[in-house]
Amino acid sequence: MKTSEQQEYHNSDVLNLAKALIARPSVTPEDAGCQQLIAERLAKLGFSNETMVFEDTTNLWSRRNSASQANLNDRVFCFAGHTDVVPPGNLELWNTPPFEPTIIDGMLYGRGSADMKGSLAAMIVATERFVSDFPDHKGAISYLITSDEEGPFINGTTRVIDTLEARNEKITYCIVGEPSSSERVGDVIKNGRRGSISAEIDFKGKQGHVAYPEHVKNPIHLAMPALTELSQLHWDHGNDYFPATSFQLSNINAGTGATNVVPGHLTALFNLRYSTELTDQLIVDQVEHILAKHQLDYDIKWTFNGKPFVTEMSDDASCFLANATKAVEQITGVAPQLSTSGGTSDGRFIAPTGAQVIELGPCNATIHQINESVSCRDLEQLVDIYYACLKNILVDDENDQCN
Amino acid sequence: MKTSEQQEYHNSDVLNLAKALIARPSVTPEDAGCQQLIAERLAKLGFSNETMVFEDTTNLWSRRNSASQANLNDRVFCFAGHTDVVPPGNLELWNTPPFEPTIIDGMLYGRGSADMKGSLAAMIVATERFVSDFPDHKGAISYLITSDEEGPFINGTTRVIDTLEARNEKITYCIVGEPSSSERVGDVIKNGRRGSISAEIDFKGKQGHVAYPEHVKNPIHLAMPALTELSQLHWDHGNDYFPATSFQLSNINAGTGATNVVPGHLTALFNLRYSTELTDQLIVDQVEHILAKHQLDYDIKWTFNGKPFVTEMSDDASCFLANATKAVEQITGVAPQLSTSGGTSDGRFIAPTGAQVIELGPCNATIHQINESVSCRDLEQLVDIYYACLKNILVDDENDQCN
Repeated sequence: MKTSEQQEYHNSDVLNLAKALIARPSVTPEDAGCQQLIAERLAKLGFSNETMVFEDTTNLWSRRNSASQANLNDRVFCFAGHTDVVPPGNLELWNTPPFEPTIIDGMLYGRGSADMKGSLAAMIVATERFVSDFPDHKGAISYLITSDEEGPFINGTTRVIDTLEARNEKITYCIVGEPSSSERVGDVIKNGRRGSISAEIDFKGKQGHVAYPEHVKNPIHLAMPALTELSQLHWDHGNDYFPATSFQLSNINAGTGATNVVPGHLTALFNLRYSTELTDQLIVDQVEHILAKHQLDYDIKWTFNGKPFVTEMSDDASCFLANATKAVEQITGVAPQLSTSGGTSDGRFIAPTGAQVIELGPCNATIHQINESVSCRDLEQLVDIYYACLKNILVDDENDQCN
Repeated sequence: MKTSEQQEYHNSDVLNLAKALIARPSVTPEDAGCQQLIAERLAKLGFSNETMVFEDTTNLWSRRNSASQANLNDRVFCFAGHTDVVPPGNLELWNTPPFEPTIIDGMLYGRGSADMKGSLAAMIVATERFVSDFPDHKGAISYLITSDEEGPFINGTTRVIDTLEARNEKITYCIVGEPSSSERVGDVIKNGRRGSISAEIDFKGKQGHVAYPEHVKNPIHLAMPALTELSQLHWDHGNDYFPATSFQLSNINAGTGATNVVPGHLTALFNLRYSTELTDQLIVDQVEHILAKHQLDYDIKWTFNGKPFVTEMSDDASCFLANATKAVEQITGVAPQLSTSGGTSDGRFIAPTGAQVIELGPCNATIHQINESVSCRDLEQLVDIYYACLKNILVDDENDQCN
């Protein structure tokens, strides 16, 4: 079974490349040679590779300007992604070794197969075919690849973007290869992401023995009414692209462990996933207004994880989203759903530059899990989808009217 | 200075005994021979000693029935106390070694000097003088001494009381030698203690990623309104002897540390110090009523630390409290204040048997601290106070009318 399957897929460009990438154990922030492999393939197509190493992180910025790009240098199409993977976890629970890619029953197993070495392979193969078929495509094709997407995301995409911005180099359209799909490849395109903002609050009370309540200020009693109000606040209704903003207290801690001691401090961590109806500043103002109203003594430390972004159908005369949607429908026969749900991705660092950003990749059911896998057929189809995206956007003029 | 002071107090029975006890390093649950020393002194006065060892704890029950006790066997006067001390802490911070009793400027320094080896010495010396002066006193004199008052109080006073109860042996009056005084010895008698009840609640939610609020049940959000209501509840007004009941949340914990994960559980610990206006059961009912009202999924584990008790002026025709108060006034010239404030003591285990219990001992300013000390003059005066208590209660008939 296994042997015949390996033979069946023996000549598949995309599976062979995906397997070569999975075999490189690139746990964040390691790249383990993945970008070198990608850079070599792209160089053969006329891409200029620029490796950007920041601290422990390796990044690749690669760009191919077509012959006709002088006229259309405002259009830079970008495939964005990451070579790093999350740790495999308990090796004994894997049916096959996580860094030995194995095909069983039409599924390619291995850490990173779905998130997102499969997508990287599909992008490369699609680009190879596209450049071969349309060497004089419009605009430019680029790759923004990092090895720090699953980690602290400090030295990855955000620093590459900073570098590009500093030299005024722009991305016009970006497909992030994150596994956006739910049941079948292409059934969901993420055309935006909610914003994410976190804060840690240190509420100050006065420690003492429970037997002497007159000498203490109990920070639990003091903070709870304000935290309750925050947790019950209706922040917005969301809009056409976004669900309503969600506030979640994720951590709350106070106490020495002793039952008879009133603690001196309470710390609380919360996170908001917010729609484009709100901004960082509106959220900060609202939280600080409520804390002030309750007359609390506190320190607060905000973390701005990413502003919300959305790519709309009407965003551009060249109809990036419409063309990507059409590409999926051309290949799969089914129009994708648009969604802005779920976690963050590096798209949040690219969108603020003015780029139109979507996420389009394979199914995400097994990502970050034991026995992560991706459908071989889905990867083959993803090559065709990416190829159709490139063609719709960089070749067919009539699509500029979003036909 | 030091030498002359040591000479000045050289012949003081109470200081010599206190020093002998302090020199025995009896950190809970160790007794280090203290009770043996006490038992030997009491044996000479005709006391019957009964050592009760429970697990790691040594206890002494000692009793002297006077010649005339056959008529008055319902009156058992008890001195209660403990030989164990809290750990000395950082030895480098002590001016003198904690287990080498040292007199400087009229203060006796050493771990346990105030809590409560000084009191134990004063009880013994007072009893020696009293039995010598009044060998045919009414009733019986007893001692209930444990080495587990500062610890988990599982194998100490509570088990001695269980043993006495099982054989129907009662204590009528009890002076616990805890350091009750504030500025001068005898300025405060504790004539009761608040009840103490604790609980740990485990609120159950459903863990998940903050990005998917529709899939989580946030136990922080769910529990806070109920905990806020509990913390703001007006439990009672207190009464003549007790301040209002106090509810304090001492610990609250939820969260994995990660900002982006909604936790599955929240645990909260609280304690109530409650007046005689409430009972354990009323508190349990009230808390469970509020938790039920908020429709929470939780487990709760109650800890019943001690019921409230009070010894009132009017409690008994023999006027125990009035006689103790009069004794203080006779010796110090100042009537003591009555108080039920502060922490718990082993009195809570003795009072439920029907005994009238008070706490009367030296000043508590330095207890449990580095350089714990007690005034030598206060200890001398405490001997006289205890002697006057014995005399007022066990000799002078006219005091039965609380003159």
